Amino acid sequence: MTRERIYLFDTTLRDGQQTPGIDFSVEDKIAIAAMLDEFGVDYVEGGYPGANPTDTEFFKRKRTAQASFVAFGMTKRAGVSASNDPGLNALLAAASDAICLVAKSWDYHVSVALGCTEDENLESIRASVEAVVASGREAMVDCEHFFDGYKANPAYATACARAALQAGARWVVLCDTNGGTQPSEVREIVSAMIAAGVPGARLGIHAHNDTGQAVANSLAAVEAGVRQIQGTLNGIGERCGNANLVTLIATLGLKETYSGCFETGIDAERLQELTELAHAFDELLNRSPDPQAPYVGASAFATKAGIHASALLKDPRTYEHVAPESVGNLRKVMVSDQGGKANFINALKRRGITVGKDDPRLDKLISIVKEREATGYAYEGADASFTLLANRILGTVPDFFHVESFRVMVERRFDANGNLKTVSEAVARVIVDGETMMSVAEGHGPVNALDLALRKDLGKYQSEIADLELADYKVRILNGGTEAVTRVLIESTDRTGARWWTVGVSDNIIDASFQALMDSIVYKLLKNRDQVGLVAAE
Amino acid sequence: MTRERIYLFDTTLRDGQQTPGIDFSVEDKIAIAAMLDEFGVDYVEGGYPGANPTDTEFFKRKRTAQASFVAFGMTKRAGVSASNDPGLNALLAAASDAICLVAKSWDYHVSVALGCTEDENLESIRASVEAVVASGREAMVDCEHFFDGYKANPAYATACARAALQAGARWVVLCDTNGGTQPSEVREIVSAMIAAGVPGARLGIHAHNDTGQAVANSLAAVEAGVRQIQGTLNGIGERCGNANLVTLIATLGLKETYSGCFETGIDAERLQELTELAHAFDELLNRSPDPQAPYVGASAFATKAGIHASALLKDPRTYEHVAPESVGNLRKVMVSDQGGKANFINALKRRGITVGKDDPRLDKLISIVKEREATGYAYEGADASFTLLANRILGTVPDFFHVESFRVMVERRFDANGNLKTVSEAVARVIVDGETMMSVAEGHGPVNALDLALRKDLGKYQSEIADLELADYKVRILNGGTEAVTRVLIESTDRTGARWWTVGVSDNIIDASFQALMDSIVYKLLKNRDQVGLVAAE
Repeated sequence: MTRERIYLFDTTLRDGQQTPGIDFSVEDKIAIAAMLDEFGVDYVEGGYPGANPTDTEFFKRKRTAQASFVAFGMTKRAGVSASNDPGLNALLAAASDAICLVAKSWDYHVSVALGCTEDENLESIRASVEAVVASGREAMVDCEHFFDGYKANPAYATACARAALQAGARWVVLCDTNGGTQPSEVREIVSAMIAAGVPGARLGIHAHNDTGQAVANSLAAVEAGVRQIQGTLNGIGERCGNANLVTLIATLGLKETYSGCFETGIDAERLQELTELAHAFDELLNRSPDPQAPYVGASAFATKAGIHASALLKDPRTYEHVAPESVGNLRKVMVSDQGGKANFINALKRRGITVGKDDPRLDKLISIVKEREATGYAYEGADASFTLLANRILGTVPDFFHVESFRVMVERRFDANGNLKTVSEAVARVIVDGETMMSVAEGHGPVNALDLALRKDLGKYQSEIADLELADYKVRILNGGTEAVTRVLIESTDRTGARWWTVGVSDNIIDASFQALMDSIVYKLLKNRDQVGLVAAE
Repeated sequence: MTRERIYLFDTTLRDGQQTPGIDFSVEDKIAIAAMLDEFGVDYVEGGYPGANPTDTEFFKRKRTAQASFVAFGMTKRAGVSASNDPGLNALLAAASDAICLVAKSWDYHVSVALGCTEDENLESIRASVEAVVASGREAMVDCEHFFDGYKANPAYATACARAALQAGARWVVLCDTNGGTQPSEVREIVSAMIAAGVPGARLGIHAHNDTGQAVANSLAAVEAGVRQIQGTLNGIGERCGNANLVTLIATLGLKETYSGCFETGIDAERLQELTELAHAFDELLNRSPDPQAPYVGASAFATKAGIHASALLKDPRTYEHVAPESVGNLRKVMVSDQGGKANFINALKRRGITVGKDDPRLDKLISIVKEREATGYAYEGADASFTLLANRILGTVPDFFHVESFRVMVERRFDANGNLKTVSEAVARVIVDGETMMSVAEGHGPVNALDLALRKDLGKYQSEIADLELADYKVRILNGGTEAVTRVLIESTDRTGARWWTVGVSDNIIDASFQALMDSIVYKLLKNRDQVGLVAAE
């Protein structure tokens, strides 16, 4: 059976950048492009080179290995030749495999926003596409406001699409820029375009979520014949967001209505990493994943209802539209803790810790982890803290040292010269082999000061932790409001190049940081002794 | 022109109660039922009397004035007469105008979950509906798993619906219980039902959001002929949620495709309270509203892009699918480093600040904002800090008070009883009218302690800030690693219900928090004087 190919075009780095509160650095863009590339989307649109320093820098090199790397920009202005248009030249100078040009296709916008004639706009589209093709790149055109334009003047909107295709554009993307078009209208308009001879195999859809139907609009367009979908990770984007590519990937891959006749570049095996992809992206944005997100949310396969829960016991599939494992997610009714237990045994085995299925200490470890996760700990992001906890429960961890007390002080005042300054100072009282060491340090902030004080004098262990470095520090406020709980994640490294993550949770950020710092130091000491993962069951 | 009536059925209090993390008290239910009743939905489903003490208590009285008050429960068990079924009797004993019975319509579920014959199930539906009708109430039947059931055995699923209607049910509601059905399938199945003679005017749709298409499925069903929609406020519900009634109300009322041929019980005037309804519900749940929610989100009409923003100035409608006022929301052109001068002027105008295009102070403001955003400030998420800054640069802000110094201390040590405890204490030295106030406070962490100390004694302003509350606190570490810079965003509120965001940035988290706290207090004082936005150009 031959299935038609649907091309996935990710615009997280371009249209997603319009999300209020989201601003990607060049490093963020490099990391996200790599995630998308590895996952298998066909096109990664990186931004608008020439429009701002970040995007210009990002486009100095090609940033994908498999995926087509796409630069976004505008068609040339009317009255200027393509070769004399500075915007178009900046675009052509960028390192990219393809260029996506945005063009007006609503007659009203051509006159109001561009202030040129309809024919001049068609000529701009044609000449710009030709310039892209001449540069050896794949050309595509985003027809802005296509659906509103089509409703106002179908002949002109269609003419814009045709002009792009005739000039050599691989794709013409129909954009619902304002996001207000309904699925039935998308279906109707796309069908009419195709009936009029525009090839669906060269059409794409770009939908926004202003009526909560960006996914439905994208699928309606596919059913009507388009073969490229533009969207973003977790549906970020201007206003209410773009079409959620994560949801679309799962639906196209798992729903027989689509998977029976279409295929994407993402196979069933890769699909099992979808939840991880969605969560890794939120992690990068430092925001909590939406628990109710389709397919990948923590609640997507959670059942609370008594009646449903008991039916789930009889046959999970009767209350699940797809198997949670198919997208790398988990069912959340504790059918029996056997399932949970097997997971734990595997997780421990991966860390070199073998433990018997019936060892009562395993039950103790599971219940402690569950209890802590309920209060905000996130062990999946803090491997070293998990390993340390497992070592403590299943075996022993030496009492290398003991922090008897610490004190952190932040003071803001005017100094003798009348300059405002803020000073952070920490004092730690550490006992090693019965001997008390008091250390004091200043830092950039209270956590930095505490970190420096704790590691200033560990007696006989001091030389061992000389190469320990704090590489990253993340804070997340859980719950929010006055009941806020703070979770701190710390990434550490040493001269061997090893990296490890530790976690701390408290209603006090200093306390949470202290826990994570302590775990990091102890983990380093265990690691130096090759004692990580050595607490096998007897 | 006669438009057909679409009936809105709210199940926030019943199916919405299945949302992980949401548990309504009787008082919550009373408050929510009143909100829905006043807003104008047709049916308010209150819960499942007899299933738990809350719902039984809630159904001791009718809780709506205009809307039909609906009790939910199961059809009688097979082998028992309706009058001898304790569940059905509890349901009939509850104070309600209507009863919604859930019934199996998937042959597989009848045998697996109910363990009875297909005919026994039909008989249960019939007898239960008759008992409801005999009690003088409106009867309706939720056909659970209807679409999956129809795919497996269309004749039996249809027979269940017919049995309910023949027994006198006003409505048969087609439920996509697992949430995996696609809009095209909903359309097809509903059309087939109606073609087979089932009257669309007596059919309803109950959709879930497991593929992100609950709204689209509801609208597809309406287009195919159903006339009742079940949904919840803000789309809460089990797993990924139910159809979002807020979104549906706006789309049905504002999109010509629907408003041209259908009407609901909610008129255009009431629709202008939609944003307020959505936010009031989140308030009751004690959660921050989703800024990207269709129609009602804070970002739903926000524009960040420079090109779009300048077009918006020319004609707002060209970049808005509906007018924000039609749903009681606001246009928001955000300040961000992507914006040009026109954006700034417009952003200031929105805040009541008029400034001339050539006023040199405007250039100063723009350069300060850009400079600060480059160091990590995010004014688009901190409206109050932006307003304050604009007031300071373009006009004047009174020196209400001056914080001469502060000191924050966090200490962790063993107390006299050998228990480990962490204490956070802050001291602030504030000068008001030449008089120095020293305040000290303990808090859950250093930021909480500082907040309490700063607001403990502001002299003559103290009574004015008594109702100021910190509603949310967010921290983001920018850059990461040792060069880390911390950005703090604080959401404040007061008894007027106003909410405002302030920002602080520093390599010291306490310093960053201090800046945001100070902005919040000063903004509150300006706001009390109606001086926000009063610094017009001369």
